[in-house]
Amino acid sequence: MIILTWNKKGLQFTAQDEENHTITVDTDIGSGGLNQGFKPMELLLVALGGCMGMDIVAILQKKGGRIDSFKMALRGERNPEHPKRYLKIFYEIDCKGEYKREDLVRAFELSRDKYCSVLATLKNPPEFHFSVL
Amino acid sequence: MIILTWNKKGLQFTAQDEENHTITVDTDIGSGGLNQGFKPMELLLVALGGCMGMDIVAILQKKGGRIDSFKMALRGERNPEHPKRYLKIFYEIDCKGEYKREDLVRAFELSRDKYCSVLATLKNPPEFHFSVL
Repeated sequence: MIILTWNKKGLQFTAQDEENHTITVDTDIGSGGLNQGFKPMELLLVALGGCMGMDIVAILQKKGGRIDSFKMALRGERNPEHPKRYLKIFYEIDCKGEYKREDLVRAFELSRDKYCSVLATLKNPPEFHFSVL
Repeated sequence: MIILTWNKKGLQFTAQDEENHTITVDTDIGSGGLNQGFKPMELLLVALGGCMGMDIVAILQKKGGRIDSFKMALRGERNPEHPKRYLKIFYEIDCKGEYKREDLVRAFELSRDKYCSVLATLKNPPEFHFSVL
């Protein structure tokens, strides 16, 4: 369970998980925010990148690869009208170290096609159950 | 653009946006993480909650409502097999203050049906373009 609490300033929220980690969710000043944290649409990219990144690092290491650095860049193209959803997401993976190229590609494919829960959620819309107290 | 960098410990990443905000993305210790930050699947809920929360607070305030507290709780039910995507997402909104009940419901509906970019992305899968350097 995630709890989000409005901070009573701008449109800023604090999110808290069950382990008491917290993050600030905010938006830019022109949109009524204070620009003190990640925006919601950016967090969607962080969720996707983090999920696939963990899969790939774990699988490549299991295959005996040595990873010296691992970076991902993600960006989206948005619908110009409301809702300004992502029409396309671009995702670039840059892994340096000593490993077989085919192992990296295979690790990526396993994440994309089998393991990544975030990607699978983005590809297969869940049911939404809203409740306004 | 979002950059995620592996922290070279466990499966932990640091995410950075273009404004230099950073957050730690991690997973639990049993899954190879260090439990020092939000998990990717939780960040998906934070993205959804933050996006709708901003819409609702902004719209309700424009309608003249006074919000004393605004909280949201989100949780998901996941597929038991890989990929462990969300099958259902439950989203509860708790708003206290002085406002018309119909205005809160209308603000929620406008976010759900028109404005929320995260929800619209979750309902309409984008194209994914991957690149493994």
